[in-house]
Amino acid sequence: MAGEDRALANGAKFIDFQTEPTRYRHWTIDVAGDVATLTMDVDENGGLFEGYQLKLNSYDLGVDIELADAVQRLRFEHPEVKVVVMRSGKNRVFCAGANIRMLAGSTHAHKVNFCKFTNETRNGLEDSSENSGQKFICVVNGTAAGGGYELALATDHIIMADDGSAAVALPEVPLLAVLPGTGGLTRVVDKRKVRRDHADYFCTIEEGIKGKRAVQWRLVDEIAPNSKLEAKLAERVRAMAATSMRNGEGKGIALTPLHRKIDGNGLHYDFVDVEIDRAQRIATITIKAPEAAPPVDVAGLMAQGDAFWSLQVARELDDAILHLRINELDTAMLVFKSLGEGASVLAYDDFLEKNKAHWLVNEIRHYWKRVLKRIDVTSRTLVTLVEPGSCFVGTLAELVFAADRSYMLVGQRDGDNRAPPAIVLNAMNFGPYPMSHGLTRLQSRFQADASDVDAAQAKIGEALDAEIAEELGLVTFALDDIDWNEEVRVFMEERTSFSPDSLTGMEANLRFVGPETMESKIFARLTAWQNWIFQRPNAVGEEGALRRYGTGVKAQFDMTRV
Amino acid sequence: MAGEDRALANGAKFIDFQTEPTRYRHWTIDVAGDVATLTMDVDENGGLFEGYQLKLNSYDLGVDIELADAVQRLRFEHPEVKVVVMRSGKNRVFCAGANIRMLAGSTHAHKVNFCKFTNETRNGLEDSSENSGQKFICVVNGTAAGGGYELALATDHIIMADDGSAAVALPEVPLLAVLPGTGGLTRVVDKRKVRRDHADYFCTIEEGIKGKRAVQWRLVDEIAPNSKLEAKLAERVRAMAATSMRNGEGKGIALTPLHRKIDGNGLHYDFVDVEIDRAQRIATITIKAPEAAPPVDVAGLMAQGDAFWSLQVARELDDAILHLRINELDTAMLVFKSLGEGASVLAYDDFLEKNKAHWLVNEIRHYWKRVLKRIDVTSRTLVTLVEPGSCFVGTLAELVFAADRSYMLVGQRDGDNRAPPAIVLNAMNFGPYPMSHGLTRLQSRFQADASDVDAAQAKIGEALDAEIAEELGLVTFALDDIDWNEEVRVFMEERTSFSPDSLTGMEANLRFVGPETMESKIFARLTAWQNWIFQRPNAVGEEGALRRYGTGVKAQFDMTRV
Repeated sequence: MAGEDRALANGAKFIDFQTEPTRYRHWTIDVAGDVATLTMDVDENGGLFEGYQLKLNSYDLGVDIELADAVQRLRFEHPEVKVVVMRSGKNRVFCAGANIRMLAGSTHAHKVNFCKFTNETRNGLEDSSENSGQKFICVVNGTAAGGGYELALATDHIIMADDGSAAVALPEVPLLAVLPGTGGLTRVVDKRKVRRDHADYFCTIEEGIKGKRAVQWRLVDEIAPNSKLEAKLAERVRAMAATSMRNGEGKGIALTPLHRKIDGNGLHYDFVDVEIDRAQRIATITIKAPEAAPPVDVAGLMAQGDAFWSLQVARELDDAILHLRINELDTAMLVFKSLGEGASVLAYDDFLEKNKAHWLVNEIRHYWKRVLKRIDVTSRTLVTLVEPGSCFVGTLAELVFAADRSYMLVGQRDGDNRAPPAIVLNAMNFGPYPMSHGLTRLQSRFQADASDVDAAQAKIGEALDAEIAEELGLVTFALDDIDWNEEVRVFMEERTSFSPDSLTGMEANLRFVGPETMESKIFARLTAWQNWIFQRPNAVGEEGALRRYGTGVKAQFDMTRV
Repeated sequence: MAGEDRALANGAKFIDFQTEPTRYRHWTIDVAGDVATLTMDVDENGGLFEGYQLKLNSYDLGVDIELADAVQRLRFEHPEVKVVVMRSGKNRVFCAGANIRMLAGSTHAHKVNFCKFTNETRNGLEDSSENSGQKFICVVNGTAAGGGYELALATDHIIMADDGSAAVALPEVPLLAVLPGTGGLTRVVDKRKVRRDHADYFCTIEEGIKGKRAVQWRLVDEIAPNSKLEAKLAERVRAMAATSMRNGEGKGIALTPLHRKIDGNGLHYDFVDVEIDRAQRIATITIKAPEAAPPVDVAGLMAQGDAFWSLQVARELDDAILHLRINELDTAMLVFKSLGEGASVLAYDDFLEKNKAHWLVNEIRHYWKRVLKRIDVTSRTLVTLVEPGSCFVGTLAELVFAADRSYMLVGQRDGDNRAPPAIVLNAMNFGPYPMSHGLTRLQSRFQADASDVDAAQAKIGEALDAEIAEELGLVTFALDDIDWNEEVRVFMEERTSFSPDSLTGMEANLRFVGPETMESKIFARLTAWQNWIFQRPNAVGEEGALRRYGTGVKAQFDMTRV
């Protein structure tokens, strides 16, 4: 089967999700007034791994890391931007999609993680549009194929050149024997609402669809001859800017480099510490409460910028999760711990709640939502330990509810005079952080009886000890000091001995109780089928289509249908 | 990887979905008044294939074919039955689930098809409860493990013995490195609404949960000591019968053996003909309109019994689809054609609409719904050709809308003096046959603009020729005689050359536009992940858990997480 471990380019030791515009090799951000232009101009020789060239604006994870960074910066650094134009820096090519040689030579785990991150990035475009009012317009100046068109699909409006050549295409099935799995199939029918039989046709032709039919079938929003394309774009930009919910006031804040140290034991940030026990295959993520009180007002917040605790800790946690996902594949379990004064965390949450109308506070809240969603789709067993000295309150309590299981200590520990741990709920647990399927974690938890959500809500602000938390259904098990060590140890030993694949499937099912949304369908129906195909010899075998692509030798298929 | 082709037991040449109670080896049906008892007492030596024994009431596809037949017969043959008790004929064992040796030695395609059919059977229990008023009570007298508990989960009410031994369990993850994939994970959280962290615990222990905790965690509805179990069951049966919507009037009809001939060219029934072109890998399914007019009233319907066209053709089509799915794995495409007078089909539909309050008419309508759902989840490209002489009207028009693509001839064929084809819509296209995700096929088709459904509805009863049908969006392509042969031929050649796996994934995504339900999640989120796991060496490799189970040698896992 496909995929050996392949060397990272330039001797890099790990995949780094941190970047900044001055280091971009593939994208540029140009801001002019209330309009930003994101130009994709992939450096062929800038691949993340050795061994392939990124021709025709094709991309790998490195290209997408820059895009994710750019979208994030536009939200935080540019409150004035209301419309983002996404376009290609190449002539007559928009984007050829995920690089096929990269895919063909990747391990299964890299393929899966590559798709997960690129899906999150595309969901992030939609989240920005919906919740920050930064609307995206995509200019398709040439071929937008596969992942290239999937990128366009994540924008709000697609304008395509009507020049007899520019076309949108999802040629994965006929060409590569895989799916348009970065949201493509789902967005075509669920977002753009292309009729399913038209979608069937569209997804089985290599050459794509251009001109009027692309508009008639809803694949793009409008077409324009090259001579009129820029004028039409300008008109569209003005119209969108005029209706944006973004008020465009004020100056942004800078997202400065994280204070991060990576060593053999883990990752160390100011407020997040990751300790990796490679023998046990467990990473323990400890989140520290702020030490200082929050600023008194939004002027103080703006002065702190990305040093404001709620934002800094979200950035650190986000980076840690991404790092662990892709660089620490042998890690079976993430254990969340917290340390510090719950009251300090609650004070920051109160600030976020009191000032939620402010654009930056809005951004911080939505960013926390996205970080928590990333955790929800992370393929690791998630465990939260609520112990003396911890501060799982408000926003941080979501880590208790995101976990597959949580344990909370009853009373104190022998030889530790710290107070018994407490969970405190606040408004952050009842709305601002929905999961990708649309429910809050507590709604999802209490599907059997919605009044359990009300019962929890009635306790807002109270310090809930282990027995009360268990009674309210907020933790899985409340254990005293005598039982704790043995039970938690046995659980962790057992859990990490199970097949990682069955755990991945089980956790992906049990975490998403109830409804599905377009976003959750992308991680469920679409991704799960794509991962299946990524295991099938017809795609990834020696004679499979991914391996044979571009060799001039036709792929050989086992024609058995399941 | 696992799975060679294995010989069917007793020299059988194919898997037959037709059976009847006198031939059952694993189940008995006992009807007493308004209560039926379905007893599972699996014959160890009655496996469908050679090479394994069905110990401890474990099952294979053959066992499930009998169950599906029994549930179907209870609906048609026993209108008097309001409650069905499902129980085990073994001492201290309810059911050990899918037979592991059978699974370990099955081809991937058989595993997938086995799960699909067993899922349909369990959905069928719930459909009977919801739409026929036959409520299911499950008596768990001992271990209900894996698929055994999944069977219980499909019933309305689970009573478990409280004897210190009877337990429910989903031990697939810890024991076998696969998922409880026959609805288990989904029904635990979405139907029984077990809290997700309790479900996590439950699904990772081998021994299961018994006694009070099983009730507290909502895994079963009630427990009773053995001395009181039968009294409690009787009480529950009476209460359920008293509230059943089934009026219990009248006598049932017999489901007699189908008139079926299977030869080298295909399958031949009275009203359904399947022609298999093995070189092209295409099966053409032709459905014939009734020749006689429908009876004038329900007394006439009862007199015809299963010879009533709407019912007979549904049974024939159902059998044909099931046969093709599992016995003709090289078939890439099902092409639906029809033959006969549209008016005759419409007359039967009118009968079904006019008499829908009658219990048997209700059964026939719901049966057609289930047959169409089976087609929706069939892993073959579905194509419908609307040609002169065809009768794609009303119920049969659903085959146009179920298809991945449809072609309709404009005008007549050269040398064929039959009239141009017409589609006629009626009430059957606007409600009675929802897909598993809850939308009708036309609602699903017209997600972009619901008024297109209204526009189609406004044409009820009109003969719609190809150009009008295309304009209304009812067919994919309307082609004249000159283009037809070339276009359809090229499409079929191309389509059947693609990787079957990528088509399976694509079709499973594009067919289910919009919302998901518990039922559709079982075929999407759950099944797709299970199929992925069924490809992973940790489960199916030589050292994987399925292969190693029962050998005394521990499975070896690749511990990489994705």
